[in-house]
Amino acid sequence: MRDAKRVGVLKLKGQAANDVEDDVVVEEPLEIRVNNCSAGVTMRTPGHDFDLALGFLWTECYISRLDEIGTIAYCPDEEHPELRNVVNVTLMDTHRQFESPRRAWSSSSCGLCGKSTLDAIRQSINACESSLIISRDILVELPEKMLLSQPNFSRTGGIHAAALFDPSGKLILIREDLGRHNAVDKVLGAALRERANPGGLVLVVSGRLGFEIAQKAAVAGIPVVASVSAPSSLAIELATDFGITAAGFVRGNSMNIYSHPERVAHGISEHPA
Amino acid sequence: MRDAKRVGVLKLKGQAANDVEDDVVVEEPLEIRVNNCSAGVTMRTPGHDFDLALGFLWTECYISRLDEIGTIAYCPDEEHPELRNVVNVTLMDTHRQFESPRRAWSSSSCGLCGKSTLDAIRQSINACESSLIISRDILVELPEKMLLSQPNFSRTGGIHAAALFDPSGKLILIREDLGRHNAVDKVLGAALRERANPGGLVLVVSGRLGFEIAQKAAVAGIPVVASVSAPSSLAIELATDFGITAAGFVRGNSMNIYSHPERVAHGISEHPA
Repeated sequence: MRDAKRVGVLKLKGQAANDVEDDVVVEEPLEIRVNNCSAGVTMRTPGHDFDLALGFLWTECYISRLDEIGTIAYCPDEEHPELRNVVNVTLMDTHRQFESPRRAWSSSSCGLCGKSTLDAIRQSINACESSLIISRDILVELPEKMLLSQPNFSRTGGIHAAALFDPSGKLILIREDLGRHNAVDKVLGAALRERANPGGLVLVVSGRLGFEIAQKAAVAGIPVVASVSAPSSLAIELATDFGITAAGFVRGNSMNIYSHPERVAHGISEHPA
Repeated sequence: MRDAKRVGVLKLKGQAANDVEDDVVVEEPLEIRVNNCSAGVTMRTPGHDFDLALGFLWTECYISRLDEIGTIAYCPDEEHPELRNVVNVTLMDTHRQFESPRRAWSSSSCGLCGKSTLDAIRQSINACESSLIISRDILVELPEKMLLSQPNFSRTGGIHAAALFDPSGKLILIREDLGRHNAVDKVLGAALRERANPGGLVLVVSGRLGFEIAQKAAVAGIPVVASVSAPSSLAIELATDFGITAAGFVRGNSMNIYSHPERVAHGISEHPA
């Protein structure tokens, strides 16, 4: 069990104090290398590391298709063979040179601002043209369905999830991580590996819907993103510009749609008897 | 009002659908420069940007004392004078060279793992030796007190906070940001600027207690960190090694103490009549 760890805890409740044991979510660094050059280090929960590496390289625009990938493997550490904290991805084109697109997106010639960030992204990816439609009644239940499918949440109480559903509400893929961005990279990496069609899927995230989550969905071509929590201004602008339906506060029997509501079927006219 | 923005929303509740307006938290990039060289870009909520820059440079070990700072100012953008998204910090020692310590901490000679990350931090900072004691009854109420003091939370529903309290439960400083790490950098930067004594303060955070939050507290010399949510394994290891009392799930009338419980007075013997 590498994703949770048992620790000693002093539990204080009312006037009582008890020494107990509890599970906490594991956090360890993962270095992602491309052709043996470091592309970044992320603090992650071990597990599905190859999906994380694939998703990271995809959503950060290092790669755009699965067939660009040669091999994925852990780098052996002779002194500590039990460690699996470095993943190397080789590309079919071994001579390709890299620079991190995220850094480029954050600074542009017209000045550093949200608008210029979106302008820079626009040069790399296109707006989503998926014709997916999902009914309000199905969409509103997806975050709860995801929570009930999380293997680790009830045990550690502190792990994020990201999941892909089809428009009928069927769970296609789910991944957990203590980091919100890692959970999204893991589930999108798994979708790439399994050759799922992103244009037919809804991405559900357990945390806030910020710029980076929306950007990853846009790169992957996901048409609908739903969060139990709040979106940021820049995530809404990105979703609006790139044809993504952004739903926030998806809880109980209600939700807010911040962009492209045409994908959410909610009227009587859309559900003829 | 730069920290929240009014947007149009389609609100779906039960079978009703209404077009309404709602406030969302603003997200914009901030570039932090040191002597006109970029030290990093963070996606943040505008406001208290100088505190964010100071806190970032402190907790990432670029600086260790306020008197290393010369000036802090926005960089003017001739084409877009309304933009305030680049902050330059000049240092008294203008010839000093930098490399980012966080990158160094993430990779070490003994292999990339949580333990080696802590070993690397140990070379830069010392364990906290503060003699601060706080009573259980005061500590357990701090997250709720912080929430009630957040100016933006009820408006946008999606903004993190970090606050510093003294052991009597008095709020000393509070800062908000859509990013958990930014909120912590802002409040610690404000403490540095106001020459508060970190050894006498409790840091309360609205989100999870992960490695980076614990690391920032350790660099700043904070003896107690409390979170409404879960800690990670590596945050607990860091708190244990660096003399920090880590409290998680601080809600209602209960909490879990994961390290150095000696700072939390909870027994009858510690409260003689």
